Amino acid sequence: MITEGLKGRDFITLRDFTREEIDTMLDVALQLKADNTMRRRHMDILPGRTLFMMFFNPSLRTRNSFETGIFELGGHANFLVPEATRLPTLEGEDQGYGSERISDVARVLSRMGACIAIRILGDKVGWEYDKSLRIIKEFAKYAHVPVINMEDNIYHPCQGMADVMTLREMFGRDLRGRKLGVTWSWGSSPKKPIAPHHDFMYAASLYGADIVFSRPPEMRIDPDIEQAIKANVEASGGSYRVSDRMEDACEGADIVYAKNYVALDLLPPVTQKPEQDEMVKLFAKYKGWIADEKRMNMAKPTAQYMHCLPCERGAEVSDAVLDGKWGTACYNEAENRLHAQKGVMACIIP
Amino acid sequence: MITEGLKGRDFITLRDFTREEIDTMLDVALQLKADNTMRRRHMDILPGRTLFMMFFNPSLRTRNSFETGIFELGGHANFLVPEATRLPTLEGEDQGYGSERISDVARVLSRMGACIAIRILGDKVGWEYDKSLRIIKEFAKYAHVPVINMEDNIYHPCQGMADVMTLREMFGRDLRGRKLGVTWSWGSSPKKPIAPHHDFMYAASLYGADIVFSRPPEMRIDPDIEQAIKANVEASGGSYRVSDRMEDACEGADIVYAKNYVALDLLPPVTQKPEQDEMVKLFAKYKGWIADEKRMNMAKPTAQYMHCLPCERGAEVSDAVLDGKWGTACYNEAENRLHAQKGVMACIIP
Amino acid sequence: MITEGLKGRDFITLRDFTREEIDTMLDVALQLKADNTMRRRHMDILPGRTLFMMFFNPSLRTRNSFETGIFELGGHANFLVPEATRLPTLEGEDQGYGSERISDVARVLSRMGACIAIRILGDKVGWEYDKSLRIIKEFAKYAHVPVINMEDNIYHPCQGMADVMTLREMFGRDLRGRKLGVTWSWGSSPKKPIAPHHDFMYAASLYGADIVFSRPPEMRIDPDIEQAIKANVEASGGSYRVSDRMEDACEGADIVYAKNYVALDLLPPVTQKPEQDEMVKLFAKYKGWIADEKRMNMAKPTAQYMHCLPCERGAEVSDAVLDGKWGTACYNEAENRLHAQKGVMACIIP
Repeated sequence: MITEGLKGRDFITLRDFTREEIDTMLDVALQLKADNTMRRRHMDILPGRTLFMMFFNPSLRTRNSFETGIFELGGHANFLVPEATRLPTLEGEDQGYGSERISDVARVLSRMGACIAIRILGDKVGWEYDKSLRIIKEFAKYAHVPVINMEDNIYHPCQGMADVMTLREMFGRDLRGRKLGVTWSWGSSPKKPIAPHHDFMYAASLYGADIVFSRPPEMRIDPDIEQAIKANVEASGGSYRVSDRMEDACEGADIVYAKNYVALDLLPPVTQKPEQDEMVKLFAKYKGWIADEKRMNMAKPTAQYMHCLPCERGAEVSDAVLDGKWGTACYNEAENRLHAQKGVMACIIP
Repeated sequence: MITEGLKGRDFITLRDFTREEIDTMLDVALQLKADNTMRRRHMDILPGRTLFMMFFNPSLRTRNSFETGIFELGGHANFLVPEATRLPTLEGEDQGYGSERISDVARVLSRMGACIAIRILGDKVGWEYDKSLRIIKEFAKYAHVPVINMEDNIYHPCQGMADVMTLREMFGRDLRGRKLGVTWSWGSSPKKPIAPHHDFMYAASLYGADIVFSRPPEMRIDPDIEQAIKANVEASGGSYRVSDRMEDACEGADIVYAKNYVALDLLPPVTQKPEQDEMVKLFAKYKGWIADEKRMNMAKPTAQYMHCLPCERGAEVSDAVLDGKWGTACYNEAENRLHAQKGVMACIIP
Repeated sequence: MITEGLKGRDFITLRDFTREEIDTMLDVALQLKADNTMRRRHMDILPGRTLFMMFFNPSLRTRNSFETGIFELGGHANFLVPEATRLPTLEGEDQGYGSERISDVARVLSRMGACIAIRILGDKVGWEYDKSLRIIKEFAKYAHVPVINMEDNIYHPCQGMADVMTLREMFGRDLRGRKLGVTWSWGSSPKKPIAPHHDFMYAASLYGADIVFSRPPEMRIDPDIEQAIKANVEASGGSYRVSDRMEDACEGADIVYAKNYVALDLLPPVTQKPEQDEMVKLFAKYKGWIADEKRMNMAKPTAQYMHCLPCERGAEVSDAVLDGKWGTACYNEAENRLHAQKGVMACIIP
């Protein structure tokens, strides 16, 4: 556990933090979770602090875990949606009286509270791959308070924190020798984000896991992140292998992480505009990719299924898996959003 | 006052509770109300607890009384609407990435907070009579924390609690010998819920009131609830009589409760789909059914008018009644939503 | 500083308060701001109090400053929009089950909390000039708790408080000898409110400022308010001059306040309905009216630019002005919304 260097930092991607820094935030998170379990309050950690939560997209877990999290630390969250403020815009995208430049929104909110958290992705940026991250970075550029990424098109670092916290609770801090089967699975919608896959594997790769990642050949992840994952496993004593067969991820796995996500090659900047009809057609070729009992039975007897939720039952995963012996980790993972984010906030908010 | 058996319970219908249990929650409510009056804070009752309020329908009283109520007890309410999360659905009604199965929503929220409260009725369930209650019960089935019914098509138990608390403040705990005139009145909209009538009469019937219920013959209430009311008055020393003349409810009454509600025989499951045009036509036959000065003057000189609000002034009740000497109880009834629900939460939230 | 006469008062226009009363609320605001700076909490000022914030129009600063402000004082804000309650209406404008009479909304909320704050203007009242103020006054008539005006078509007193607080921080309490250049500037939208201009000048006029107000001849302000400003400067030792040249406001100014606003002569009651196309055409004649470097350089070397925000960059003011040495006061002004409103609430909420 380190004691300096986190206060005042932005939390935009896990890649901005060292393993020691991530460990520290998780140590704090676990202690706050223990506090909750024994009903020890800790509202003196961030008393009177306001967290501005700006949601361009819907949310159940992220919104409730942040709103409850800052409250349990002694603060308060203002729940903001663009329709109720005005649209925060980048330079050149102003809409008269209907928008406000992000540089101004960020400066004004910084004067009134302690932290700004933002979720923006998908439709809200026309699926331009890097635009949502640019928007969050624009907030961070002008804010005088920490900015937290509540999910963009590329990264979902809060989810990554909850994921690795859940893994640590099951396996300890050292994931060497643990096989994490990570896979694309089928879904009916061409709109599910890829960010959770990125950050699940990125976070796990820091701790020495053996990652087997299976997906249809057309469903690649971001090559830059893939590169970072490879570098991480090399340093941490893990491994990373890619496969075209879902079963390769499942066989002998400690964890099966199966979730649908969009095909990056049918979205900007590869295509001019989102090719969602094409994507649904492409997905149809792989409708059999589902985490069902048959596949879970290929994993270790103690294996658990993981997913960031919301999941599409019957598409990405069967009811029998989620509601059976394999489903516990998935709900722990959701709960850990609360604790992990409290750990982050307790460490970075001054 | 009882001291056990309430912690951890769901609050879905009054019928799940004994008179002693209801009395206990009201005793607590009255003490909390007295605290407020003398400005004694009680934020140590539910410190740090999160209440998830899920509103499928609009609300003024229910939302504000719960949000303020949990705050005054030391907690915090997250105000959730389906557009900002995703639509919580029953099995078989999934909408791809636009919905999330209730079993998952309930489990996830249970991990993050202390109580889930839900309002769902009318248009939001296509007026299927029992569907909204089934949805609330589905939440309760999967939640590990208490679930509170903030109104469905059949029941509005929080309103029932506030109603009987208001009656107790006027008449004491024993309503024997008190005539409660309960009546349908005219309204311009074919969308007003029947649940408040059900729970007003159900709650009052526990305490020995003499209930005279008048409505046009086409505007029956739920026969199962009517049966329960009859059983209650038999046990409590009260009476229950039905009439087709509004005046029968008003004459000599201590309370005139007059409110519009939908015709159950023009809604599913009786009809295929909501017959709202027919309903407006049917209502037109009874446009004279209004709680006006003439009718209030038929009641006792000390009589009060009651209504759960919002009311349609000039339709269900005249301005002169609401704004005159008969209107006080109605606003007390609204205020008691706050106190009664605090009593419920203080008793059931662990 | 005065010690009585403020508790329980409504805060609807600055004109309802004496200079001494305004000074007192600002004295309190400055002390609360100093508390924040040294991180001294003051949550014991309004513990457990609920503020109902009713927003008919979008808001960034007003909403966040009130929500954070009441929280920092120990209370909680319920964020209400008409779609989530029902439309609060004046007598004669009821919409069946879709609305609720303001007299009832105000009475009910008064029973549940400590203060009601309302923003309503522009489109939401069909641009009827005095209607939004009438609505706020209707709330005040029936509420038993203080009502705060969060902006109507005519007044924005919370903005006026923040403005004069910002001026006091720069120049002290006595503005005699200070030239405040106040001007209309161009904007692309025919929807920007005039209330901030009214209250900036009204507030400054109480403190002896020399106000030079420039605008195109068609863009008059409210004559009644102009009369009040003239009376104020006479009493306070300031002056008020009107001009048709933007430069007259800028030359030698300590402050340049430049903002777009609607043409009152193209809105009801002067016209039958809002003549927004005409207004855009009229504005086009004055597209050169922008607070740019050239004009700011006509002001004193120490001059600052002010605007209530959100501003239309490139229209009302250039990026170089806002982001350069002239822009600081503008963000101070935004921040002071928080402190000034805390001062108001701390003084008027019982």
